[in-house]
Amino acid sequence: MKKKINIYQLVSVLLVVTVFVLATQINKPTTDMDTKAVLSVIHQRKSVRKFIDRPVSKDDLLTLVKAGMAAPSGKNEQPWAFVIVTQRAILDTLAAELPYAKMLSQVSAAIVVCGDMGKIDNPTGSLWVQDCSAATENILLAAEAMGLGAVWTAAYPYEERINAVVTALHFPSTVIPLCVIPIGYPDGETLPKNKWKDENVKWERWQ
Amino acid sequence: MKKKINIYQLVSVLLVVTVFVLATQINKPTTDMDTKAVLSVIHQRKSVRKFIDRPVSKDDLLTLVKAGMAAPSGKNEQPWAFVIVTQRAILDTLAAELPYAKMLSQVSAAIVVCGDMGKIDNPTGSLWVQDCSAATENILLAAEAMGLGAVWTAAYPYEERINAVVTALHFPSTVIPLCVIPIGYPDGETLPKNKWKDENVKWERWQ
Repeated sequence: MKKKINIYQLVSVLLVVTVFVLATQINKPTTDMDTKAVLSVIHQRKSVRKFIDRPVSKDDLLTLVKAGMAAPSGKNEQPWAFVIVTQRAILDTLAAELPYAKMLSQVSAAIVVCGDMGKIDNPTGSLWVQDCSAATENILLAAEAMGLGAVWTAAYPYEERINAVVTALHFPSTVIPLCVIPIGYPDGETLPKNKWKDENVKWERWQ
Repeated sequence: MKKKINIYQLVSVLLVVTVFVLATQINKPTTDMDTKAVLSVIHQRKSVRKFIDRPVSKDDLLTLVKAGMAAPSGKNEQPWAFVIVTQRAILDTLAAELPYAKMLSQVSAAIVVCGDMGKIDNPTGSLWVQDCSAATENILLAAEAMGLGAVWTAAYPYEERINAVVTALHFPSTVIPLCVIPIGYPDGETLPKNKWKDENVKWERWQ
């Protein structure tokens, strides 16, 4: 006994299979897509210096600091500390005192990445600047990935800027601010700089 | 005139719509998925010190260096240079000379991140260590995202290690190696350290 198969039955079966296959691909990004997302964010990260008037949530600020604290650390010393500033008066004081951080007057928050010499065995051979710089880069990349804008404004090694931050934030003498990162929602689009230069790459040896 | 609608026709139409909707979701990750991918890679990055015997392609090494060169740079000075080492003899020399980079003998490649004082206006007030550290973190995150293993082994500020790299790679006197990053395919799984510590976060002021 032969049963006639309706074309719609056949199409339905094929479509059910297709739906199943497609559904497995959603919300489960392949490693390849993760790779692309990360490389894209690394290349899209830019210094944002203009912000709209929209506050950043405390949860988002903590997410950024968590990203910072996941940075590598020489001898696992973790010589860092992170001060999250959201009070208008403190942000405005920092904006007034720091020549390259005027945009602090536009944002609702900043993260100050610091080295805590109290956590370091041997400050002269210390990797705290390297560790805190890696933490800063993690924060900037996380901000870019979250649709936030941020910019690395250096405090260290400039004595006047260090003193301004130390005074405004009541730091103990063991704590040195590396940088102040204003955090907000970008006003307009800033294009990332293309910094690629062939001559900055050498193969095997310098010469 | 009424036409009878076959149930399979109806199902087919619904399935076609479903396939269309699902298809639009694939290979076009939402911002939310990008955010998760980037945060996940930041938190999954770990120091890999054991590698299998599988070479890393030159294309992948260049992708890593491109990620490094996209780092932020103070005053846009871009004081960096990247030496990609793949010659067995040079890798083995570095492994022998550098006490914390013995795993160079297991890998087919390393990237040496350097500061080039020739590109810097004022070396004493320079941000080259910060810029090169951000570049190093970009390389480590890109490696993690690409399924590669890597580890930051410091050269600077240790004179003996700096001299070892300078000699092995024929650096001119203006170039200082910050770190040597062995790159390979991980042998086994290394879990990332959880470095989160509540006491490393301050709100508003230190005290």
